[in-house]
Amino acid sequence: MSAYHPLTLEEAIQIAREIPDLFHEQADLSAREIGDGNLNLVFHISDAASDKSIILKQALPYAKVVGESWPLTLDRARIESEALLLEHALCPDLVPTVYRYDAELAMTIMEDLSDHMIMRKGLIEGNRYPLFAGHIAEFLARTLFFTSDLGKNQQAKKEAVKQFINPELCKITEDLIFADPYFDSETNNFNPAIRDAVETLWADQPLKLEVAQLREKFLTSAQALLHGDLHTGSIFITEQSTKVIDPEFAYYGPMGFDIAAILSNLAMNYLGQEYWSKTSEARESYRRYLTETLREIWSTFDNNFRALWNEHAIDPLAQTPGYQDIYMQRLLQDAIGFAGCKMIRRTIGLAHVADIDTIADVQVKERAERLALAIGRTLIMGHRQAKSFDTFIDTLEQAIEGVHTS
Amino acid sequence: MSAYHPLTLEEAIQIAREIPDLFHEQADLSAREIGDGNLNLVFHISDAASDKSIILKQALPYAKVVGESWPLTLDRARIESEALLLEHALCPDLVPTVYRYDAELAMTIMEDLSDHMIMRKGLIEGNRYPLFAGHIAEFLARTLFFTSDLGKNQQAKKEAVKQFINPELCKITEDLIFADPYFDSETNNFNPAIRDAVETLWADQPLKLEVAQLREKFLTSAQALLHGDLHTGSIFITEQSTKVIDPEFAYYGPMGFDIAAILSNLAMNYLGQEYWSKTSEARESYRRYLTETLREIWSTFDNNFRALWNEHAIDPLAQTPGYQDIYMQRLLQDAIGFAGCKMIRRTIGLAHVADIDTIADVQVKERAERLALAIGRTLIMGHRQAKSFDTFIDTLEQAIEGVHTS
Repeated sequence: MSAYHPLTLEEAIQIAREIPDLFHEQADLSAREIGDGNLNLVFHISDAASDKSIILKQALPYAKVVGESWPLTLDRARIESEALLLEHALCPDLVPTVYRYDAELAMTIMEDLSDHMIMRKGLIEGNRYPLFAGHIAEFLARTLFFTSDLGKNQQAKKEAVKQFINPELCKITEDLIFADPYFDSETNNFNPAIRDAVETLWADQPLKLEVAQLREKFLTSAQALLHGDLHTGSIFITEQSTKVIDPEFAYYGPMGFDIAAILSNLAMNYLGQEYWSKTSEARESYRRYLTETLREIWSTFDNNFRALWNEHAIDPLAQTPGYQDIYMQRLLQDAIGFAGCKMIRRTIGLAHVADIDTIADVQVKERAERLALAIGRTLIMGHRQAKSFDTFIDTLEQAIEGVHTS
Repeated sequence: MSAYHPLTLEEAIQIAREIPDLFHEQADLSAREIGDGNLNLVFHISDAASDKSIILKQALPYAKVVGESWPLTLDRARIESEALLLEHALCPDLVPTVYRYDAELAMTIMEDLSDHMIMRKGLIEGNRYPLFAGHIAEFLARTLFFTSDLGKNQQAKKEAVKQFINPELCKITEDLIFADPYFDSETNNFNPAIRDAVETLWADQPLKLEVAQLREKFLTSAQALLHGDLHTGSIFITEQSTKVIDPEFAYYGPMGFDIAAILSNLAMNYLGQEYWSKTSEARESYRRYLTETLREIWSTFDNNFRALWNEHAIDPLAQTPGYQDIYMQRLLQDAIGFAGCKMIRRTIGLAHVADIDTIADVQVKERAERLALAIGRTLIMGHRQAKSFDTFIDTLEQAIEGVHTS
């Protein structure tokens, strides 16, 4: 098997069999394709006798999103695989093990995480993950610090920038997050009931002025290797374990963007709880769980990142008094600004989140969407003045209170 | 001739002869090596009969600076050649024509500029170049705009970032400009008479805090393809013509860094005029010429860059009201901050400028060096508050007045 072609189940099994020291030679392997077919084939290959299983993920040469299809480079499979390996080396417990990568087939074989659940689904079901905040804060601190000029040899970092140049996937982000939602673009996809709010946003020049600068940061700031798409759909989770997957959007960008993905997706779930929680007590309790999780993510990230800085920073000026505080504050501000962009794009733009999109009550759904836009705007407009993480939580809570008291 | 080796005069002539449509088949070519041997061999190859001549520049696999020698990649010849081609395409009159590049020999053959003078020498001799401000402003505006996300397809720009990843040459800048001068480093090289001022600077934590942030910008901000070493020694000039040469430090960095190179080198010459001008009238007149040139550089650059933006910007948010003003102000601030760093490094760091270093009067020289440090510090400390280019000129003029009145 050499030249690229989409694999059959039989071929996938044959490839899996050839991985050294995994399956028994005579194992009776079975495979099923479990992907959604939009970007990748995903094969689950297992041996019922030994209880061993793996995932084989193969990139397709196109992307399908909401009926649209456009060609997409297979090089993203290389980027995903190399990012997984790098993240796994930094956070072995938080990233699946890669067994094999094949460039020609654009295929990565990795640890099976079928005992985990996609976090977005878990949050919608009202599960709580007491270890998640610590896990994701560690993932963020370690991957961002050790790929940046603070924690990585600065010449090797430049080679890493080259390795992860990722024009096609970056373009998706640039278009769908940092452009289309702010214009009457064909790719947009929003509830007709909120058209008035969307049109107000399209005419909102002060908002666009902030978004232009956040977009510029996404385009030019080669601060660290980002996961690039770190929403709750890219996280496999159990109560005990957190695994970050799917880094095909990885590239050198502004650290705050990855942090923002986590913050904004938890915030979207927070809004969705008006529907998903069965009682007002349950809602209040779950929202408290989410805000506590959010606070813990930032504070643990902040602590971890500073600890890495104090112990491992290689930049000759890193220990200059005051520099770390300025750096962390700017990180916080970037994260808040990008989080705002993500809340707006998940409401107006092409790709939404199930936390809100699958709400069956049209009025509750509309309310959540309007809140997402309002919160997104407040975060973006205020991000450069943010002094502490309270800005994020306060914005969320005050928006909710505003609805209750209005 | 295939594998890399330093060329002989005879080989250089043979290679020159093979360039199509340049020299006559039977031309009697002569060659001499005119480089300083520190980084490159530079052959001047001419045909007395036809008056035609060319420059053949070959990278050496090491750098020699002030007696030190360290290995250096030959890939810098590729970067230099590709940057020259790109700059020439954008500014055909301001960059020498490249006739041929050979990767294996790390060799570029280009237009001979022997009728031009190195600008630093010309300024020391008191020449005036009435077209220079317009020329260099055009070079800066066009090269920076059309290689940035404002003027270049944003996906192609990412490939250009990859093409110009330049770790070794960037490291020279990072060490010699953004680190060593701020510590008691072995590479430093300063007049023992100013040791008190240098030691004060080494203990100056507020200054280092600003430098740390400017260093970070140099390390992370992939804004545009920079020349990377745009001092007056990288410019060939006559009254009518300006040619920018030697872009081997080219990489994607913050635009302000290139602007700063021009500003700071003119400022160093301004300081040196206490010695080079024969009378106080001549000094005042030449300094006025320099400040007028500086003002014209910024105002013309600002005008040109805005005009390119208004006509050619491809970023979907570029026309957002207010964005251009914010962008230009930040460019100004960056240029002022980087200019301060360059004045300090040219006084304390490894490589100095002849404008001050060749001053024979030890007291005048010391005064100029102390002024360079003081001005550098003021520029760095104030750069983030700068609102107009007056900040730069005022800092220069007030420092001089301070000396005269104290």
